[in-house]
Amino acid sequence: MKALQVDRARSAIPVRPDLQRSAMRIAAGFALTKPAFGTVPSDQILECPRRIRRNAQQTISGIQMEFIENRTFDEINVGDTALLERTLTEQDIRLFAVMSGDINPAHVDPEYAMSSRFREVIGHGMWSGALISTVLGTVFPGPGTIYLGQNLRFRRPVKVGDTITVKVTAKEKTEKGNVVLDTECVNQDGEVVVSGSAEVIAPTEKVRRP
Amino acid sequence: MKALQVDRARSAIPVRPDLQRSAMRIAAGFALTKPAFGTVPSDQILECPRRIRRNAQQTISGIQMEFIENRTFDEINVGDTALLERTLTEQDIRLFAVMSGDINPAHVDPEYAMSSRFREVIGHGMWSGALISTVLGTVFPGPGTIYLGQNLRFRRPVKVGDTITVKVTAKEKTEKGNVVLDTECVNQDGEVVVSGSAEVIAPTEKVRRP
Repeated sequence: MKALQVDRARSAIPVRPDLQRSAMRIAAGFALTKPAFGTVPSDQILECPRRIRRNAQQTISGIQMEFIENRTFDEINVGDTALLERTLTEQDIRLFAVMSGDINPAHVDPEYAMSSRFREVIGHGMWSGALISTVLGTVFPGPGTIYLGQNLRFRRPVKVGDTITVKVTAKEKTEKGNVVLDTECVNQDGEVVVSGSAEVIAPTEKVRRP
Repeated sequence: MKALQVDRARSAIPVRPDLQRSAMRIAAGFALTKPAFGTVPSDQILECPRRIRRNAQQTISGIQMEFIENRTFDEINVGDTALLERTLTEQDIRLFAVMSGDINPAHVDPEYAMSSRFREVIGHGMWSGALISTVLGTVFPGPGTIYLGQNLRFRRPVKVGDTITVKVTAKEKTEKGNVVLDTECVNQDGEVVVSGSAEVIAPTEKVRRP
């Protein structure tokens, strides 16, 4: 029974050049070569070319800021927390399916999903995982972070329209210079949908840009 | 120092309706409401509307198949393996950045990346994580699988052009009816880039479609 499904991944499927072209257009349109730093929802990223993002004012602890920055190892204190809020849309699910190839009908087929355990379409578990990596890579600790590991427990489904708050909290600074962070996603009802922890090498050099 | 960055995630950034519309078009174009089952690279998904996919022949162990199916708990044997092969493209990185909001310059800014530890742009670690979830959700065990948890260790960077083989192997069937699977991503040089394990509730009902 070993490796029964090996060749599935290589099955030849007819090409649809029109859809392929449209995917290339999408990708080309996003112009992400000079991004701003900071945690912003992806729908906002789509709206922010370099020029605008550079001028965007960031608010930290209620203070208007005109720069964005990472948090170096030395600047990180156990207990520091970063939050990111996102509402799951059908578009998010479609983008995840296209990006990953995960077209599990629980995520993309409403008819199938109705008959499933959750009675409706649910988001990919790894969508929440991706949001955690977004916080780590863009804000806390941010640019310069090396991602070493991530543990995830998927505790509840995330449904279209659910607003997820990703909470990343520094838990431990190790002797080797790594940082362990609690990573939790909570929905609008306060229920934990994903729990777990991450381990990173935090940046040693400050990144701070106007 | 607690929750210093809370408000970053909610910073107001000017809207660019043109880019927003283009994102909506992308999402609308993919028509994923009636997907085929089976593990196919996302660039192939883009090319396969329902009609074509339904007729696509799948190859399993060298035998041409005209159906697609999941693997139920009873059908899973310890040692069974499923593979998925994908080559990382710049488009994959852009799509991941747009989907997740993770615009860490290590992934999307070649100039910044040149000066970083890896000397070039690297893929998001969670891209590999997403591919693992793709195997679990679409082929092995496939539709009906409930994803309970995932541990990931990011061991080496994945660069543009690297061909990653995702290998998912059933390791243990628990008394509670769950399945623990080894999940490993290996590059074209045979180096492990991601290791870890997943825990799922395997489907009890067979899904098999022409």
